[in-house]
Amino acid sequence: MIRILIVNPNTTQVMTDKIADAARQVASAGTEIIAITSSQGPASIQGYFDEAMSLPGLLQAIQQAPEHDAVVIACFDDTGLDAARCLSDKPVVGIGEAAYKMASMISNKFSVVTTLARSVPALEHNLRRYGMGHCCVRVRSSDVAVLDLESEILLAITDDRAEAIVLGCAGMTDLVASLSARFGVPVLDGVACAVALCEGIVRIGLKTSSVGGYATVK
Amino acid sequence: MIRILIVNPNTTQVMTDKIADAARQVASAGTEIIAITSSQGPASIQGYFDEAMSLPGLLQAIQQAPEHDAVVIACFDDTGLDAARCLSDKPVVGIGEAAYKMASMISNKFSVVTTLARSVPALEHNLRRYGMGHCCVRVRSSDVAVLDLESEILLAITDDRAEAIVLGCAGMTDLVASLSARFGVPVLDGVACAVALCEGIVRIGLKTSSVGGYATVK
Amino acid sequence: MIRILIVNPNTTQVMTDKIADAARQVASAGTEIIAITSSQGPASIQGYFDEAMSLPGLLQAIQQAPEHDAVVIACFDDTGLDAARCLSDKPVVGIGEAAYKMASMISNKFSVVTTLARSVPALEHNLRRYGMGHCCVRVRSSDVAVLDLESEILLAITDDRAEAIVLGCAGMTDLVASLSARFGVPVLDGVACAVALCEGIVRIGLKTSSVGGYATVK
Amino acid sequence: MIRILIVNPNTTQVMTDKIADAARQVASAGTEIIAITSSQGPASIQGYFDEAMSLPGLLQAIQQAPEHDAVVIACFDDTGLDAARCLSDKPVVGIGEAAYKMASMISNKFSVVTTLARSVPALEHNLRRYGMGHCCVRVRSSDVAVLDLESEILLAITDDRAEAIVLGCAGMTDLVASLSARFGVPVLDGVACAVALCEGIVRIGLKTSSVGGYATVK
Amino acid sequence: MIRILIVNPNTTQVMTDKIADAARQVASAGTEIIAITSSQGPASIQGYFDEAMSLPGLLQAIQQAPEHDAVVIACFDDTGLDAARCLSDKPVVGIGEAAYKMASMISNKFSVVTTLARSVPALEHNLRRYGMGHCCVRVRSSDVAVLDLESEILLAITDDRAEAIVLGCAGMTDLVASLSARFGVPVLDGVACAVALCEGIVRIGLKTSSVGGYATVK
Amino acid sequence: MIRILIVNPNTTQVMTDKIADAARQVASAGTEIIAITSSQGPASIQGYFDEAMSLPGLLQAIQQAPEHDAVVIACFDDTGLDAARCLSDKPVVGIGEAAYKMASMISNKFSVVTTLARSVPALEHNLRRYGMGHCCVRVRSSDVAVLDLESEILLAITDDRAEAIVLGCAGMTDLVASLSARFGVPVLDGVACAVALCEGIVRIGLKTSSVGGYATVK
Repeated sequence: MIRILIVNPNTTQVMTDKIADAARQVASAGTEIIAITSSQGPASIQGYFDEAMSLPGLLQAIQQAPEHDAVVIACFDDTGLDAARCLSDKPVVGIGEAAYKMASMISNKFSVVTTLARSVPALEHNLRRYGMGHCCVRVRSSDVAVLDLESEILLAITDDRAEAIVLGCAGMTDLVASLSARFGVPVLDGVACAVALCEGIVRIGLKTSSVGGYATVK
Repeated sequence: MIRILIVNPNTTQVMTDKIADAARQVASAGTEIIAITSSQGPASIQGYFDEAMSLPGLLQAIQQAPEHDAVVIACFDDTGLDAARCLSDKPVVGIGEAAYKMASMISNKFSVVTTLARSVPALEHNLRRYGMGHCCVRVRSSDVAVLDLESEILLAITDDRAEAIVLGCAGMTDLVASLSARFGVPVLDGVACAVALCEGIVRIGLKTSSVGGYATVK
Repeated sequence: MIRILIVNPNTTQVMTDKIADAARQVASAGTEIIAITSSQGPASIQGYFDEAMSLPGLLQAIQQAPEHDAVVIACFDDTGLDAARCLSDKPVVGIGEAAYKMASMISNKFSVVTTLARSVPALEHNLRRYGMGHCCVRVRSSDVAVLDLESEILLAITDDRAEAIVLGCAGMTDLVASLSARFGVPVLDGVACAVALCEGIVRIGLKTSSVGGYATVK
Repeated sequence: MIRILIVNPNTTQVMTDKIADAARQVASAGTEIIAITSSQGPASIQGYFDEAMSLPGLLQAIQQAPEHDAVVIACFDDTGLDAARCLSDKPVVGIGEAAYKMASMISNKFSVVTTLARSVPALEHNLRRYGMGHCCVRVRSSDVAVLDLESEILLAITDDRAEAIVLGCAGMTDLVASLSARFGVPVLDGVACAVALCEGIVRIGLKTSSVGGYATVK
Repeated sequence: MIRILIVNPNTTQVMTDKIADAARQVASAGTEIIAITSSQGPASIQGYFDEAMSLPGLLQAIQQAPEHDAVVIACFDDTGLDAARCLSDKPVVGIGEAAYKMASMISNKFSVVTTLARSVPALEHNLRRYGMGHCCVRVRSSDVAVLDLESEILLAITDDRAEAIVLGCAGMTDLVASLSARFGVPVLDGVACAVALCEGIVRIGLKTSSVGGYATVK
Repeated sequence: MIRILIVNPNTTQVMTDKIADAARQVASAGTEIIAITSSQGPASIQGYFDEAMSLPGLLQAIQQAPEHDAVVIACFDDTGLDAARCLSDKPVVGIGEAAYKMASMISNKFSVVTTLARSVPALEHNLRRYGMGHCCVRVRSSDVAVLDLESEILLAITDDRAEAIVLGCAGMTDLVASLSARFGVPVLDGVACAVALCEGIVRIGLKTSSVGGYATVK
C-alpha cells in the first residue's frame, strides 16, 4: 500500500479536488491518494511572485499532512520542489519535472503548451535547470479557452515539429485522452506523470538523499 | 495486468535470469516480467563494438517476443534504445536512462560507478545526450571485484561529493540495499528504476510517439 | 540622491546591521542605504528550506519599506530574486548574482568560497542558471572558522587556478581588503558588488521590465 | 599511396557505385578508393532502426575488406562510427561528422538540408554530441525531389541566415558545384569532406587511440 | 573622484564626441569622462577584420592616455577587451558585455538590435562566450535608418517575446529614453551601462586580476 | 598543385623556419609551402595582449603574400582566424582549431599540454567557442623544459584519462613521433593537422563563405 500525498500549493479547494480526481484515475489499486490544500498563500499561482508566496503554506501543509510515502507538488512551476525535499527523506516529485522526464522517454522533442504568458520564463528556467532545454522545442502560452489551447497544440506539431505535447498546468487532466487521439501525438499531463513516478520510486525503495543539499532540516 | 518485456542484449542466459530475478523483486503484484535473451551477438557488452554487434539480435528478440506492454533494455549503455522505439508505439526504457532520471529526482548530483574503463566514454556520451551531464559529477570505473566497487563508491562520496550513487551495470541489483545502508546515500540499480518507470508509463497510458524520429517502421 | 533598500532575508537584526555597515562603506556620497530585516522567517538561511521559508517575510518587508529606488537582496543564495522583481519596476539585484557578474569582468575564472556545505548545490544551481558555470571553477565550502576560510582560498588559487575569489556569504565584508592583499588576487564581497550595481542601474534610468515574467503583480 | 576504404552501410550496390564515383572525383592522385557494400542489412538507411540493423553487416564488411589505411562510413547518420573505431587503430571518419567539421571552418553557421523527416532527430543528436549545435542553425528536410531541395536551400539562406549548406545525405555529390554556384554559398557534400579528411589524417600519421573507449577489440 | 577613460576604437573623432556626450549624461557628479580616439585603424568597425585592425591603435591609445581609474571600450563588439585587461590592473569593461549583463538583471530575456548584418556572428560569439546565449533570444540587424530600427524592435517584442532591447552599437545613445517610452520595455545603451559598471567597480576597489590570463604584460 | 600559405604571426624568423620545416615534412608531393613571417608585432605570442598586437602585421602579411590557395595561421591561440577569413574567400585554418578537430576524430577525449600558464584561458575560450569543451578534459601548462612537458603528458593520461594529447604550441612538431611512441597515445601537432586540413579543403573546392560574418572586406 503506497500513500501519495498530493499538495496543491494554491489555496483553492476546488482545484485540489480536480487534481485528486485526476490522480485517483491513474493511481494503482494499492495506492492511496491523499490530496491536501495549502492553508495560506495565493488562490492561484501565476508566475514567480505567487510561487514565492505559496511556499510556507505549501511546506507547512506537507509537514502537517497525514502519514505518506511520497509527495507530489501539483503546480506546473514545480514550486518549492527543492525545499520540500529537505523536509524528510521521502521522495518528492514535481508535476512539471515529471512530465518533462516522461516526455523525453517517448519522443525526441516536445513542446509545452500552457495558458499564462507570465509563467513562460519560469518554465523555461526549470527546463534549463533540469538539462532538458534541448528536448523542449518551445514553451507556448495561450491566455485563453479550449479552442486556443488546441490551436497552440496544432502549431506545436506543425511549426515546432514537436513529437509530443506537455500540458503546462495542473487543470487539464481530463483532456489528455481526447487531445491525444485528436492530434495523433502523445499528450502528457503532469499529475498523472508524477503519480506514476512516485509509485515507482516508492516501490523500489528509493529515498531522497540525506547528504548534501537535500539533507533533512532539523 | 502489465507485461514488461526485459531484453538482455547479450546472449548470456544466466545474466538474463539474474536480471529477471531483480526485476521480479521490484515489480508490482499485477506486473508480469517476461525476460528474454538476445539470440545472437556478444556474450557480454563491453563498449561501442559490442553494443553495435548486439543490435539486430536485440531488436529481433523484441519483435519475436510474447505480447507485452513495455520494453526494458537491460544494458547500462542503453544499447539500441532509439531503434527499439521505432518497432512499435510501446514505451521503451533503458536502464541507464532510468537510473539517471531517478537519481536526478532524489539528489542534486550523483556519480556513476561501473566496472569497465572501456565503457566510460559511452556512458558519458549518453549522459551528455540526455542533458544530464551537470547532474553527474563523474563516471568512475573499477575493473575489479566487490572491494574495489566499494572503494569507488567511497571516493564518489568523499571526493565527488556525490549525493547518490548509480551502479553502472546490470548485474549488481542485489547489492543495492546493503550498499545503500553501508554508505548512507541512495544507491540506484538501473533494472529496478526501469521496471518502475515502465509500470508508470503504461499505467497512465503513454505510448512512444508515432510522429517524427520514432515513427514505427513498416 | 539614490535610495537603496537592502533587505536581509533572515530575521537576525545584528546581521542586518553588519550588512548595512558594509553597504555604507562602499556607497557613494549621494546614496542612502536603507537596511531592513525580514519580519518573519528563519534566523539564518542555510539551504533550500530556509530560502523558501524566508520568502513571504522578505517580500512583505520590501512592500512595506520606505521609499527607495532599487533593492538589494542580501543573501548569497539570491533568495526571492525573481519574485522581488515582480513587486514593481524598481531594479532588484542579488548579492550572489552581483558578485559573479563583477568577478567575470576582472578574471577569466573564479572560485566561490562559502561556509556551508549544504548551500553548495543551491549556489551551483544559480551559477548554472545565470550561464556562469564556465567562469566558476568550483564552489568550495568550509564549515568552520577564519583559518579554514583561508585554507580554502589558498586551494582555490593553487588547485582551481582561480584568478579571483568570491566570498559566498553576506557576513564577510570586512575581510575583503586584507584577504585580497594577502592572497594577491581580487576577493569579492556580494554586498559591495550589489550596492555598486544598483547605483549604476538607477543612475542610468533602467527599470525592471514590465513585460513578461517580471510584469508587476497587481 | 593512401588506400581509403569507403563503406556503404546499406546493401544497395548502385549507391556504393555512386559514392565511389564521387570519392574518386575528389581523391588525390596517390589515393586508391576501395568502395564496399555491406553484405547484410537494410537497402537504405532511414532513421534509428535502419541504422541499428545495418551495424553488423557494416562492421563485418570492414573486417573482411582488403588492406586499407583509413575508413569512411558513407552514411550521413554516421552509423557505427564509434564501433568501427574499435576495430583497429586505423582512422575512421563519418561523412556527417566530416561535413560539419569542414563547414564550421568556412562559415559561422550552416544549415543541413536532408530528404527524410524521419532522420532529422538522429542528425540533431549527432550535432549535439559533436558539440556543433551552435554552428548549425537548423536541420531541414524535404521528403521530395530536386525542386524541393532547392527550396529548402533558399529558405536556409534567407530564413536561417545560414552561411553554408550541408547536404544531408550521401547521394547528392554531383549537385554540389551547381548548387554552390547557383545559391552563392558553399555547399558541402559529406563524401568529399570525409575523403579529404582521411587523406590528411593518414598523411600526418595519426591513428585512432588505442587507449580508452576506442581500444581495439580482441 | 573617478576618472573613466572611454576609448573609441575607431578613428572617427565625431563618433568619440558623441560617445563622450552620452557618457557624461549618465556619469556621476564626481566622475570625469576622458574620451580618446584610436590614433590608427579603421574609421568604423564593421565585423571581424575591422576589429582586428583596430587593436594596436586601441591598445596604444590606452597606454598613452592620461591618468585614469577604469577603461570603457566603446565598441559593441567588445574589441580588444581581453588584451586591454592585460595592460594594467585597472578594470576594463566592454559596452556589449555591460549591456548584456545589465539586461540580464532587469529581464528574463532580451534581443539585440544592431545595424550591420556582418556584425551579427561576432555578437553571437560574444554572447556565447559570456554564457549569455540563453538570455538573448536573437541578434537582429537592420542595415538602415531609424524607421527600420523601430521595426526590428517591434519584431523583437512581438516575435521574440523579448522583455528588453539592447541597442547593438555605440551611436544610438540619445534614442534610449524615447524608444523605451514608445515601446514599453527597457531599452539599453552599452555606453551608459559600461560607465555605470566602471563607476561601481572602481568605487568598491576591484581591480583586474594580476594572476593568470590577465596578468599585466611587462 | 596546392599552395599553402603559412603565416607565423610573431616576428621571429627562426620560428617561421621551424614551422615551415614541419609543414614540409607532412605536405603532399604536390603541395608548395609558402612560409611568411609577420612584418610587425611581438616576437612571440604569449596571451591576449600579444595576440592583439600581432593582428595587423599578420593580416598585412597575408594580403602581401605570394599567390596561394589556403592559409594556415601558425599560432596555437588561432590569432586572427576570423579576421583572416574576411580577407578573401580562400580557406583559413588555425593550428589550434585543426588539432582539436583532428583529435576529436581519433579519441573520445583529449588534453592539451602547453608551455605557458598565461595562455591557458585563451585556449579554454577557443575550445568553448568551437563547442569542443566536452572533448577536452583539461588544458595543462608546464612553464618549462622537455622533462616537464613529458610529466604533464603523463598526468594527462593517468589523471585526465585523456585518450590523446594535443601539443599546445607551434614549436614542438618534431617531438610528435617520439612522444606518441613513448606514451602509447596519439600526440597531435597543430601545424601538421592544419596543413592536412588545408590540402583537403582546397582539393574538394571549398571556399570561405562570402555571405555573412566572413564576407570579403572591400
